[in-house]
Amino acid sequence: MKKEIMEKRHVHKYEVDEFAEVEDTVASEYPLTIMVNGEEFATMVCTPNHLEELVIGFMASEGLILFLKEVKSLQIDEEQGFAYVELTKKVALNQEGHSKRFIGSCCGKSRQFYFQSDMRTAKTIRTDTTLPVPACMNLMNEMQETSSNFHQTGGLHNAALCTADKIVVSYSDIGRHNALDKIYGYCLKNRISLRDKVIAFSGRISSEVLLKVSKIGVGIILSKSAPTTLALDLADDLGITTVGFIRGHRLNVYTHHNRIIES
Amino acid sequence: MKKEIMEKRHVHKYEVDEFAEVEDTVASEYPLTIMVNGEEFATMVCTPNHLEELVIGFMASEGLILFLKEVKSLQIDEEQGFAYVELTKKVALNQEGHSKRFIGSCCGKSRQFYFQSDMRTAKTIRTDTTLPVPACMNLMNEMQETSSNFHQTGGLHNAALCTADKIVVSYSDIGRHNALDKIYGYCLKNRISLRDKVIAFSGRISSEVLLKVSKIGVGIILSKSAPTTLALDLADDLGITTVGFIRGHRLNVYTHHNRIIES
Repeated sequence: MKKEIMEKRHVHKYEVDEFAEVEDTVASEYPLTIMVNGEEFATMVCTPNHLEELVIGFMASEGLILFLKEVKSLQIDEEQGFAYVELTKKVALNQEGHSKRFIGSCCGKSRQFYFQSDMRTAKTIRTDTTLPVPACMNLMNEMQETSSNFHQTGGLHNAALCTADKIVVSYSDIGRHNALDKIYGYCLKNRISLRDKVIAFSGRISSEVLLKVSKIGVGIILSKSAPTTLALDLADDLGITTVGFIRGHRLNVYTHHNRIIES
Repeated sequence: MKKEIMEKRHVHKYEVDEFAEVEDTVASEYPLTIMVNGEEFATMVCTPNHLEELVIGFMASEGLILFLKEVKSLQIDEEQGFAYVELTKKVALNQEGHSKRFIGSCCGKSRQFYFQSDMRTAKTIRTDTTLPVPACMNLMNEMQETSSNFHQTGGLHNAALCTADKIVVSYSDIGRHNALDKIYGYCLKNRISLRDKVIAFSGRISSEVLLKVSKIGVGIILSKSAPTTLALDLADDLGITTVGFIRGHRLNVYTHHNRIIES
């Protein structure tokens, strides 16, 4: 049975000084457990659509796979909330150090914080793609306009893979990271060239978001919201251009500003 | 050395059709590794203030402790980002099933999703405290007004522990769950009675947020944002009143509505 991304719920709504009982739409939060080679790998909560992209992108982001061809089979039991994955290789799922903090000092101050799994998968981006200021604003507006779900329920994050001219694909999810994993899965499934791509994102640019962007392999992240200090340190280090507070005719470029040109 | 909760960063700001180089304020994202009885328990990223409350609340939320007296010592190395905790008892930190999904069916449909650690710590709330509609709006407004950080940087979530009349304590954090863990830590440190308390929260009410509220032991959660379906299933089950979309003179009561009275 197909799960719905929004469900009707009974609500006591107060307005104009009184309560009324109405039906309202609420964003679905759906638990999905990923089994890899017969072992439990992780349980995530997500918006129940594009689950194949999500599972593939999440495994890539966690360093389990690099290419789609490493996935021998992938079956999703949507009713029960399980994804069954067989990989072409053995993996040590709960190996020591998977979530262990890595503290180094050889490559500048911001290398001081990564998880060991991020060390393996974060990529330094060297693209020379540029993006004009008006394109930043247009892409952000276009993403907002196509994301009616967000406005209906107030509960979803959006992430879009774009060229300078248009949105290639856009995903919504109650989990900010899931929306990015869905993009990663889409890129791997469709062998998308990332050289000329940009990601537009509805939420804050945290270190986790920044690391996802680096793992996907995209050099520019656009957001209407703010970045954090750790995200900016990582972006500096990993060669990623961060553009925040894209609102109306304003924006802030925080790192690697040479990729954003006036027009 | 005391860490700052916001830092100045160099920004290329575009407005009125040109770029200017300015200094701007960015929310700090600070990695804190918690060592329990000499073993690494978890690394979180957070806003670096009220770290004692955060560590105590997080351990309680994860089911490591029930009372403050179980903490023999707690030392924080703020410079290096480590918290060293000695508990009065031995704990199995990476025991099987700590994050294993629990699927049961004995207690109604919404019990179908908990982690095993949540099963141990989530509490059903039986308080008969009521809250008038105007108090919901006043508390939400008061929290917004006192949270200037949020407006300065656009990056922080707020959570406040309140009575019907006023805010008792309010915390900000870049991590939505951290703000709630800081409240939990505050309650344990100060032996706060929770019978008449309410939590006001700036973000969406997800299942994780709802489970934190249940673990703290509070019966009413107020938010200006939306809930998710899974959060509402859990709230139904655990006896928690969820009030969302508190904006101007409107609000929605989703579960256990009898606690919210007209005036």
